[in-house]
Amino acid sequence: MNETLRLLRAHRSIRKFTSETVTDAQVSEIVRCGQAAATSSNIQAVTVIRVRDAAKRERLAEFAGNQAHVASAGAFLVICADLNRARLACEGQGGTFCEGMTEHFILATVDAALLAQNCVVAAESMGLGACYIGGLRNNPQAVSDLLALPRQVYPVFGLCLGHPDQNPAVKPRLPLAAVLGEDVYPGAGQAEAIAAYDEEMRAYYRERSGGAKDSTWSLEMKALVGREARPHMRGFLADRGFTMM
Amino acid sequence: MNETLRLLRAHRSIRKFTSETVTDAQVSEIVRCGQAAATSSNIQAVTVIRVRDAAKRERLAEFAGNQAHVASAGAFLVICADLNRARLACEGQGGTFCEGMTEHFILATVDAALLAQNCVVAAESMGLGACYIGGLRNNPQAVSDLLALPRQVYPVFGLCLGHPDQNPAVKPRLPLAAVLGEDVYPGAGQAEAIAAYDEEMRAYYRERSGGAKDSTWSLEMKALVGREARPHMRGFLADRGFTMM
Repeated sequence: MNETLRLLRAHRSIRKFTSETVTDAQVSEIVRCGQAAATSSNIQAVTVIRVRDAAKRERLAEFAGNQAHVASAGAFLVICADLNRARLACEGQGGTFCEGMTEHFILATVDAALLAQNCVVAAESMGLGACYIGGLRNNPQAVSDLLALPRQVYPVFGLCLGHPDQNPAVKPRLPLAAVLGEDVYPGAGQAEAIAAYDEEMRAYYRERSGGAKDSTWSLEMKALVGREARPHMRGFLADRGFTMM
Repeated sequence: MNETLRLLRAHRSIRKFTSETVTDAQVSEIVRCGQAAATSSNIQAVTVIRVRDAAKRERLAEFAGNQAHVASAGAFLVICADLNRARLACEGQGGTFCEGMTEHFILATVDAALLAQNCVVAAESMGLGACYIGGLRNNPQAVSDLLALPRQVYPVFGLCLGHPDQNPAVKPRLPLAAVLGEDVYPGAGQAEAIAAYDEEMRAYYRERSGGAKDSTWSLEMKALVGREARPHMRGFLADRGFTMM
């Protein structure tokens, strides 16, 4: 197993950081590594905002559901899916931007995620810790206003980066056999794999919480997908021009 | 610059492979590294299908727009956004799956992209080459039928993996200043950055094509976003249960 594989496998979210700074040079390198990821037809439909302003950081921490590390991390990036730049370029050549395509929305969202994951890997290779902040989607309009995002841009998630001040365990993942199929969707055996994983996660939660948390993956999924999630997203996206035609 | 940073920066798509095999052990490791990426609330809303069957590989190559490397690469993975497994788990606990949320669609699409990007980094660290195949979204229903994907699952893209039989140059990316803003969206200077990048890409295209291709990034964007793109996606996704409420 080479060093990069070891690094990838060792990932866990870090939410507690020391006060050591993350330098501009590090952020530049991290984002350049992000840019190096593949991008559909070279569209590069991503813009990253590094938020330094302390007042903005506090507000973003609130928007994300009072996640203090959003304010305290050495660096905080907001990763935005961005079709605005391609629109500018298109119109600059006398074209008419075809707004609202579902495909373009998928493309930009995927581009943002590919870039972000490379950022995480780059940061972790430098010894930094990272944590995605999907919580920004709790209040995406407020985030967009705070960062002056134009239409055709939406904040997909944030990224906390910093020197770790904790060393949590790596969370177990689903069995490979449940996630990797051969020629067809691995439908057979899903129930058994989920049951086995439920027990693995029960033990993980118990240990991580010192006995306080008694749950399983299935129970967490019941909570997560058994109810509405961020029902404002559709309307928010439509207002930004992502009408999903 | 550490080895991982060098690796990330060196990425370019590989579409020509030798006949050397990609082993099962390599694919397992690659997908485990994929699984190690962050996943929203541990939902792990991704399923990967490794397609070995030669006839299926040929059909997928056609579906993707006659991309021969889909059939010829040492390994071909179809990366699927998957809410079906979470649904199973939820219903197994007596819950009712809340179908069609836009947020869940975003979440699963992002999870798939994060996993895939880790797969690419892992593969490249092994000396393999990789290429994303967004072209599967040209015919997503046909792909879904071929792989027996249930509802609440959609193929985001494919991934060709193999031993490289070419050594293309790394494609230049947008200037960092256009992509990375400080506290606000970097609106000022976008036009200049695009203009500078246009000239850089003109030179890149000319060199790569031996003088045959005269284009710029803006002209490519006019072609890409100045017209409809995969207008079938909305209807396809709705049929799969991704109604985007």
